[in-house]
This record gives sequence, C-alpha cells and structure tokens, in this order.
Amino acid sequence: MASTDLVISASEHQKRIETIRAALKHSGSSALYLTNPTRILYATGFSHITTERPLALVIPKEGPVFAMGPHLEEDHIRLQSEIINEYYSYSDYPGLTHPIRRFVRILEEKGLARKKIATDSASGAAGGWGYRGPSLTELLPRPMVDGRDIVDRLRILKSPQEIRLLNESARWAERAHDILLEHLKPGARDVIAGVRASYEALTRMMKKIGGRYRQLKWGLSPVVVGCRGQVGPESAIPHSVFSKRKIRKGDVLVTEAGVEIGGYTSELERTLVVGSAGSRAKGYFEIMLNAQNAALRAFKAGTRCNTVDSVARKVVEQAGLGSFLRHHVGHGIGIDGHEPPWLDPGETTVMKRGMVFSCEPGLYVPGFAGFRHSDTIEITNSGMNFITKYPRTLEELTI
Amino acid sequence: MASTDLVISASEHQKRIETIRAALKHSGSSALYLTNPTRILYATGFSHITTERPLALVIPKEGPVFAMGPHLEEDHIRLQSEIINEYYSYSDYPGLTHPIRRFVRILEEKGLARKKIATDSASGAAGGWGYRGPSLTELLPRPMVDGRDIVDRLRILKSPQEIRLLNESARWAERAHDILLEHLKPGARDVIAGVRASYEALTRMMKKIGGRYRQLKWGLSPVVVGCRGQVGPESAIPHSVFSKRKIRKGDVLVTEAGVEIGGYTSELERTLVVGSAGSRAKGYFEIMLNAQNAALRAFKAGTRCNTVDSVARKVVEQAGLGSFLRHHVGHGIGIDGHEPPWLDPGETTVMKRGMVFSCEPGLYVPGFAGFRHSDTIEITNSGMNFITKYPRTLEELTI
Repeated sequence: MASTDLVISASEHQKRIETIRAALKHSGSSALYLTNPTRILYATGFSHITTERPLALVIPKEGPVFAMGPHLEEDHIRLQSEIINEYYSYSDYPGLTHPIRRFVRILEEKGLARKKIATDSASGAAGGWGYRGPSLTELLPRPMVDGRDIVDRLRILKSPQEIRLLNESARWAERAHDILLEHLKPGARDVIAGVRASYEALTRMMKKIGGRYRQLKWGLSPVVVGCRGQVGPESAIPHSVFSKRKIRKGDVLVTEAGVEIGGYTSELERTLVVGSAGSRAKGYFEIMLNAQNAALRAFKAGTRCNTVDSVARKVVEQAGLGSFLRHHVGHGIGIDGHEPPWLDPGETTVMKRGMVFSCEPGLYVPGFAGFRHSDTIEITNSGMNFITKYPRTLEELTI
Repeated sequence: MASTDLVISASEHQKRIETIRAALKHSGSSALYLTNPTRILYATGFSHITTERPLALVIPKEGPVFAMGPHLEEDHIRLQSEIINEYYSYSDYPGLTHPIRRFVRILEEKGLARKKIATDSASGAAGGWGYRGPSLTELLPRPMVDGRDIVDRLRILKSPQEIRLLNESARWAERAHDILLEHLKPGARDVIAGVRASYEALTRMMKKIGGRYRQLKWGLSPVVVGCRGQVGPESAIPHSVFSKRKIRKGDVLVTEAGVEIGGYTSELERTLVVGSAGSRAKGYFEIMLNAQNAALRAFKAGTRCNTVDSVARKVVEQAGLGSFLRHHVGHGIGIDGHEPPWLDPGETTVMKRGMVFSCEPGLYVPGFAGFRHSDTIEITNSGMNFITKYPRTLEELTI
C-alpha cells in the first residue's frame, strides 16, 4: 500500500490476524470462524454483500487463512484481499447439499472439525434474507465457543490508520454538509436536497481523491448527507426515515453527514433553523449545546463512559427538561455506525486514548422539534480531539 | 387508507395479524415474539432502523398487539402503526437493567412468561451493531419455539396490494434506468452517474407522486440506480461494490434499478454495451438472453422452482459455457431483496399464482465481462407476467 491509499494496509491486516492467532492460542482454541461482515472486513480487508448465502472466514491458529462461501464471490475475494489465501466455494444456496454441510467437510479436511473452534455464530451463517439451515455447532463433534470478543476487543481501540481514515471521512462530510446547506430552503423536500447534495459532494470528492479512493461497503453513494426525515415536528423523532412535509420557514431540521473511507464513517449531525429561531427553539438549542459542551469537557482517558453521559444529562435535568431526553449521549464508532463502548448509565468502561465516540445529547419536544448535534471525537490523554470540525452555534446554523 | 396510497392498507395488516393469530392457535402457542425488522414491517406497517437496541413486536393469540423497545422509537411507533396498540419502552441500551430483563418482566405482567411463545429469535433481540445480552429463552421458565415460518409462510404468496406496490416500484425503476442510460458514457464514473440518475429520477417521481409517497426503509434515496461497480472486466464480479475504473468505449456494464414503494422493491438489471459490441460480447450476450428466455417460458403455476433453474442452465451448458455460471437463476422478492423460494437445483417448491421471482441467469467471463439481465415476474396460472417491462435486446441496450 502506498501511504496515501485510503484503506487499511495489508500489513495492518496481517498484524490483526497475528493478534487474533495469539488470542486463539491463549484461549486454547484452534481456529476462529467468522460470519459477520464487519468482523471479516476488519480482519482481512474483504468486504462483501451479505445475503442468504453463507460465507465464513476461518483463521486457524496456524496455517493459511481461508474462506468458504458462494461461487459468485470467488473472483471477488481473490481480487480484494491479500490475507485470504484459499477459498472453498459451493455453487449456490440452498443447493443439493446444504452449504453448512460442505463447510463441515472442509473443516474435517483441514483437521479442525474435532478441535475447539471459536465463532461469532454457532449456526455457522450470518443468516440474512430467508436463510435456513442446520446448526454448524450441532453438526460438529464438539460444540463451538463464543469468539465474538476476540475481534471486537481489538476494534475498541482505533489505530493511527483507523484514525486517519475517520479524519478523512470527516473532512469530506464537512464539505458535504456545507453543500447540503445550500439546498435546504423553504419549499424543498429534504430527501431531494439530500440526494442532490450527496451527488455534488461525491463529484467533488472523486475529482480530488478518485485515484486513491475505493468504496468498500454496499450503498448507492459513499457520501450520504441529508435530514433523514427530521424536518419540523418530525425532527423530534430521532430515528425518522422520511418526511412527506416540505421544509418551511421557521422549521428546525436535524441533519446527518457521513462519508465511507476504507470502510470507516465518522458521524456529523447538526440542528439547523430555517429563517430565524423563535425564543422557544432558541431556549432548547442552548440547553442542547450546553449539554454537548459539558460532555465534550468530560472526555478524557481514565474517565468512565457513564460519567460523560451523566454530566450531559445533568445539564438537561437542571434546566427542567429531563422529560425530553430519549437516548444516551453517544456510542463508539468505527466500521459499524454504532460500536461499544456506550456513553450510557450502564457502561462503566474506562476510556482510553484511541477510543472514538459520537457525542450527541438530544432533546426531543413532541409535536414541536428535536435538537441534537453529533460530533465524532477521539480520546486523548489530556481530553479529546474533534474528528468532525464544524460550527455548532445557532448563529452559524441558521439558514 | 385511500386506495391510491402507496402503502399496504391498515385493513390488510389487520388481516395479516388475524392470520398469524390463527396460526398461533393452531400450533398451540400463546404469542409470537418478533425481532426481525422485515417481519415486523410485514405484520404491522411499522418500519424502524435496527440498531444494538432491542425492539420486539409481540402478537398474542388474543388481546392487544404490543411492542417493547427503546424510548427513542416511542413517538415514531405511535405515528406509524395503527396495529401496535401499546409500547413499553426502556431508556436506552445497555442501561442499568438490561432491556431483555425488562422484556421478561413485561411478558410476566402480560401473563405470557409461562406460556408457549413462538419467536424468530430465541435470544430476544435482532442483535445488530455490538449488541450483547442474556438469552431471552433461557430467562423464561419455558423455552421459546421457532416461529419464523408463521410470518414467512404468508410472505411467499403476494397479495394484490403487494403486486400493485411492486408494479409501481418497477414503473419508476424503468424510468430511472432510462435516465441512467443518459449518464453512462466513456469517461464517466459509474458511481457518479448512478447517484446523478437516482437524483433525477427521484425528483421526477416526487413531482408526480410526492403527495402519496412515503419511504419506509432507511436509505439515502428510495430510488437506487447505477452499475454498482460492474464496469468492464468488473462486470464479471456479480457482487462487485465499486469500480475505480472510468467507463470506456467497448465496455460491458451491468446495471441495477430499484425503487422502494411501501417497503417493496422490484429488481431490474440490464447488460449494456458502450459503443458497439465485439463478436465475443455478442456471443455471450445472446446465450445469456436465450437462457433468460428459456427460464421465462418455464414459469407457470404448478411447475417446480428447480425446473426454471435447470432449463436456463441447460441453454448455457449446451453452448459449452457452463463454467461461466456463478449462481442460480433467481429468487423470490418482496420486502426483502431476496426471499424464498429459490430458483435453484435444491428447491422443489411448486410455484403458485401470486409468487414473485427475479429471473436472472448470468454468465461471468473472468477478466472479460459479465452478462446478466434481471427481471421481476409474477406467476400466473397460464405462465407469468412481467412486473419489470424493459427492453432486453443487445440492439436496444447498446449505448
């Protein structure tokens, strides 16, 4: 890999594999059998569209890393990953012989079937889209053991390469958000403004970095910016999907901007006001911003995750608005949009340098509007660094 | 619901609930506990973004249908579904008490905890994005039983309303594909052409049906059209995601166009040639088209699914090109992109009127190109109807 390539290097993947092998040896397991596409991407750089067709990556404690899966991924896997040395394919699912029974035979041939195998899926398959099958662990002479944490433990602390990809992601998300602001106006539909801004931002990004860029995850566009239906009263629905309502003067909007770089996407969200904010909206916005500032000041290696949640919550509760809270303050972020650890009352994990979190306390006033900024931040020994760098004041976010 | 609304009616959802209740009574179960977002959408019309936060729909054999889930979906669920009468929320995941333990208490209060409960997830959660939790079935005094088929059996035969939504989906996908053709040209990047065409097609669609339209599933755009990386030699990778290579004269491209209408998306894919096809590409294209025609002629209520696969396969094998096959001929389609039954050697299900399939035999010539059309068709008593109606000849698909 050239150091300018916008993916994780083959040598970092090799290092991850070696760390996984060390964990296998330590736990007395002979192999790790993975089906989750995020874990497979993390370990090898191979990204695939998960369907009903079972696909598994096997990392033995020694010997070649191999995968088993449908014939249609055979050439794909060869092109994409330097880490996966062998691929055993079946013609298709369900087939005359169920793929999981073929996988058992391959594990037998590899001398693994009677050994202790750690896995993220005892059924042997990720199991999407109408999949049915026999349970792999029940077909093997020895039950498989839970191996999810072997990979997930590694994912919690981000490497310098991962931080670099998240920063690059944020850089393009910030520009996409600028473009979105030009398209959000009274009479506009948020979904159309979002796709338009995503198109323009993608075009600019590809002009600049198209030679080094490769989208790894399935999706119409690696640049996604818009309001996701969070328009006017519907901004009070944090997981809104679509708004039938056109944007009006005075509306509060909540936006989101994300750009996939090498499998990683930072999170940038902003509360906007169209035209000018009334005193009611101003008041809620200010409390939300105070809560976010309190959370941002609390981040630091050595602090517990639930402390960040509680300082933000306190700001809202002291303003008498506790009933407008609908979720905790944030989550880890990396290849998956949400990852542990959580900024939640129930999370006592101590933060460390290299952890990355969203910071997004929100107020939701039913029938009126929602108020939430989300920033992606990196934990340092002395506090935190912004990965997303974008204006946060009402003045700057009035359009 | 007005009959012109582009969603499944509340009365059809009510009918689905009653059918599910009848199946529960028949199997001696007291309730169905669902976590899969497609099954929840199918049963109730409620669509949500699945995250690490557990959310479950419970359909008791009698009494109110209720859901349990995170606080942030509370207002959303109230707005979206007439079917779900009660919602029991927890503040967030993981929380001080794990959500699954709260769900147990609610099941106890409902008098269901000691009864036979059918489920699509014995763990009690859909389990995305770093979720961990105790197993619901192990916390209950009585183990839950597999209830996936209670809903999935119903999904196989499409109702007139479902067929209407799939037809509407295809109608807009055809237009989106026309627009895509204008943007695919030498020097263009397929990802940019796709997002541009999706934007233009979405704009036209919203102009025409914006008053009646609501996107139910999460995604940047309900209109998705493009090549998904299937450009030139990479068209030989059926599950390609992205191409770094700009389009060149002579390239073979494989496209896809899908539009979500009321949760349903038809499948339309075409093989294109940029400029003019050489004799090699012509030959493969012709065999692919012959194989698709053979499959299309084989569809009919009363025929087994594997027959359709085998007649298409035979065309390719008789041309001596069997080694270029990479997958079976098609799959059922509905709310999920792939659904059973499969057009596969291992699928002996007899086709019935109202089933809907993709028909997409493909040839993949490594290093050269891939050749695949996909159409969505509906089974009738006398044969099949095209849901996607779009040119299929090389002449019409040379751009």
